[in-house]
Amino acid sequence: MSKVDLNCDLGESFGSYKIGNDSEIIKLITSANVACGSHAGDPIVMGKTVAFAKESGIEVGAHPGYPDIQGFGRRNMALSPAEAKAYVMYQVGALMAFCKAEGMTMQHVKPHGALYNTAAKNADLSLAIAEGIKAINPDLILMGLAGSESIKAAQSIGLRTASEVFADRAYEEDGALRARTKEGAMITDEEEAIKRVLRMVKEGKVTAYSGKDIDIKADSICVHGDGAKALLFVQKIREELTKNGVEIAPIKSFV
Amino acid sequence: MSKVDLNCDLGESFGSYKIGNDSEIIKLITSANVACGSHAGDPIVMGKTVAFAKESGIEVGAHPGYPDIQGFGRRNMALSPAEAKAYVMYQVGALMAFCKAEGMTMQHVKPHGALYNTAAKNADLSLAIAEGIKAINPDLILMGLAGSESIKAAQSIGLRTASEVFADRAYEEDGALRARTKEGAMITDEEEAIKRVLRMVKEGKVTAYSGKDIDIKADSICVHGDGAKALLFVQKIREELTKNGVEIAPIKSFV
Amino acid sequence: MSKVDLNCDLGESFGSYKIGNDSEIIKLITSANVACGSHAGDPIVMGKTVAFAKESGIEVGAHPGYPDIQGFGRRNMALSPAEAKAYVMYQVGALMAFCKAEGMTMQHVKPHGALYNTAAKNADLSLAIAEGIKAINPDLILMGLAGSESIKAAQSIGLRTASEVFADRAYEEDGALRARTKEGAMITDEEEAIKRVLRMVKEGKVTAYSGKDIDIKADSICVHGDGAKALLFVQKIREELTKNGVEIAPIKSFV
Amino acid sequence: MSKVDLNCDLGESFGSYKIGNDSEIIKLITSANVACGSHAGDPIVMGKTVAFAKESGIEVGAHPGYPDIQGFGRRNMALSPAEAKAYVMYQVGALMAFCKAEGMTMQHVKPHGALYNTAAKNADLSLAIAEGIKAINPDLILMGLAGSESIKAAQSIGLRTASEVFADRAYEEDGALRARTKEGAMITDEEEAIKRVLRMVKEGKVTAYSGKDIDIKADSICVHGDGAKALLFVQKIREELTKNGVEIAPIKSFV
Repeated sequence: MSKVDLNCDLGESFGSYKIGNDSEIIKLITSANVACGSHAGDPIVMGKTVAFAKESGIEVGAHPGYPDIQGFGRRNMALSPAEAKAYVMYQVGALMAFCKAEGMTMQHVKPHGALYNTAAKNADLSLAIAEGIKAINPDLILMGLAGSESIKAAQSIGLRTASEVFADRAYEEDGALRARTKEGAMITDEEEAIKRVLRMVKEGKVTAYSGKDIDIKADSICVHGDGAKALLFVQKIREELTKNGVEIAPIKSFV
Repeated sequence: MSKVDLNCDLGESFGSYKIGNDSEIIKLITSANVACGSHAGDPIVMGKTVAFAKESGIEVGAHPGYPDIQGFGRRNMALSPAEAKAYVMYQVGALMAFCKAEGMTMQHVKPHGALYNTAAKNADLSLAIAEGIKAINPDLILMGLAGSESIKAAQSIGLRTASEVFADRAYEEDGALRARTKEGAMITDEEEAIKRVLRMVKEGKVTAYSGKDIDIKADSICVHGDGAKALLFVQKIREELTKNGVEIAPIKSFV
Repeated sequence: MSKVDLNCDLGESFGSYKIGNDSEIIKLITSANVACGSHAGDPIVMGKTVAFAKESGIEVGAHPGYPDIQGFGRRNMALSPAEAKAYVMYQVGALMAFCKAEGMTMQHVKPHGALYNTAAKNADLSLAIAEGIKAINPDLILMGLAGSESIKAAQSIGLRTASEVFADRAYEEDGALRARTKEGAMITDEEEAIKRVLRMVKEGKVTAYSGKDIDIKADSICVHGDGAKALLFVQKIREELTKNGVEIAPIKSFV
Repeated sequence: MSKVDLNCDLGESFGSYKIGNDSEIIKLITSANVACGSHAGDPIVMGKTVAFAKESGIEVGAHPGYPDIQGFGRRNMALSPAEAKAYVMYQVGALMAFCKAEGMTMQHVKPHGALYNTAAKNADLSLAIAEGIKAINPDLILMGLAGSESIKAAQSIGLRTASEVFADRAYEEDGALRARTKEGAMITDEEEAIKRVLRMVKEGKVTAYSGKDIDIKADSICVHGDGAKALLFVQKIREELTKNGVEIAPIKSFV
């Protein structure tokens, strides 16, 4: 029986600033990527989010990002691999404190935003990040873009990996996400998006923007919780997956 | 045989900014309080400092402070106990990542600067900090001002504690440090300072500013490494302690 | 004819984080206190907020706060008067750049949150802040709590001042706001709140919590825009003031 | 008679962290680029640095950088032109407050580090920065790399410009600085460096790394004050320039 994980970014509020809809989306996912105070989140939010994840019975992963709250970690920063490694270790460790306090074992690490995207194409950066994670705990799972340098680097040093796919994004023939600036980057038809996800999970295939079928590994599907429409879409994905014999389960149970 | 620990704040550099004389003082101490990126330090500095401590054979503790690099954690901030707890947990966890990468077990936690001073007099704040530390690892030792609320709070929940004393500071009858703004706050005569330290360690007594002898527990002596004079003073303390049959050893070996 | 100003804090969003309801409240006020990137706001938000204020025909003031976005400037910080002066100057200057770009003259400076409250009771801090403002532009108006040290300090060096009153807060006999932690601190009855405001503006009197009438100067009324109820309350205040012959006008036109 | 300006970055200390040798180099230069609290500097340091520049009789310029103190503004950040414009305006305005307090008129703006280098090759970014400066005060001078997009963009909207040259760096045929990662990037022979500077100032020519002579405009020479050797080198440059009939004067007197 096929299995797939549903992951969402949580804990992105900061001080008096609230973002996201954690309390609703948390019911629909199996893994939470929790912001670590660098691009979003703060120690109070981190503690509450981990406690909330535990209470909701889902797994927790660290979501480290660039040190840029003002840019929400979405602006690329030219960090050296050594800097990226240290910054990721710092953030993973910080979140781990709150996991320990809740008696939870951190499941995974998924880099955020511009760090995720840059690492996906940069083998050196990806290796540094993977080494930082392994140095803390070799049982941690690296979650990254399916087929990316992030996944390859983690596997090369023996880390478990979770290949992430996107329901609402088009892919290029080489497995890269089609840039948002290009035509057809987003899959706006929900029915089509769900069909694509199902095929990725069950067949390991997706049709690239060019029309060619490519191989893709789908361990986890990235979902979002902002807005009623987004929540409804996640519910539909869940239903279709279940109806088609796919079990929704945290990555640690099958990767 | 009496034992005492010598501790110093290390890893306070930040990005391109260098502070302290870590490479010299590290040879003379048994425990390092490593800044955690909140009032000083950054992930790169933390990694290097922990590796350096390991190489030098000394123990590592976290040195969490207020979130105020510009003020070096020396300006009081009105944090709630819940905030202080979360901030301390965050910083301890972050440093722990670097300890794990070096195969080291973190020995202790010593709050920094204004957080140290405020907690020393505030039972609620101290309890919150102690609970945060215990939630991460109940084997961690809380280092705080001898006789302070910090020590009492930690003991009340079963944490091991290390009572810290100061060679160059005068004490009030209640065991508090005489405020720096008051006359006679500093012990400027090195000979007298060393005699006082010896007595604190061996007899558990010190003469308060008022002239009255008070009880004081001396598990660890706070020293500084900035400047040739400071280094020389630490060497003298070491010699006098050893000469007088006091073993200099990390707190974890005797508290 | 009596005149009074209605002021509100604007431009408190930060990066991807949105706060407040600037587009609605701006139609109802005469002066905006714009966050300066220290406790809230960022350069992009500041530029947009100043442009929006100009377009809406209202006056702009700087709203400097403690350097603590995570705490939204609401946690007291032990800044020296020299630090507070420099921090205020920095923030006022930064906002002034955006005023110049819009061809606007900054009207006033109103310290934010914990800085406002601390300065209100601290003559040294208030003097330092007032001197910093005067050093930049002696025509700037200091807006502060009616009867506070902030107002006195500014007047003592010849700055114009605007005394601020609160519709929804109780006063003590000495003119201080009744602490929020005490019973009866908030005036929850809207009718009563509006009556009190009217009397403050027209008679310069308010009944303290003790029942005694005290003198109070009301140049500007602090209002809020978050939520439909808050907006409605401001509309009611406007109507009652106008109906009772009070002109609503920016402070620069009458203080 | 030829004129040239000598500029140096000043005011880069931050809180308890000291960097640079401002008190020595300030005697040898005509223009100071003062850090604005984003990549270095803080409000206290800014106030002192501006006061010190006034006392020393030199001109002050703003030295805005990326919002990254940990990276000292040397790590590239993917800011949009609108963000760069707003960030520069914010920082220029903040420094202007301290200039006003000293009765000084800000002379110029020179972007710092990675922002300087990125803007030099990016017309859109340079135009946004120039527009931000002009919007604050059209009399400000933009200081940038000789021949760069920064200079062209500023001139295209009518800003005065100061073309900066480097004594210790090799140039490519297109006027770009030879990348530090390449062989021969640094001119290590002091005599040669000084000869090159003299020729740039007097003839407007420099020999590129390829051996070909290229045109170069030299309004200001970038110098450094860290270390006795650096100071001595600046003294030699001053002597040779003067001996060869070049007047050392602030850019505002001749550009």
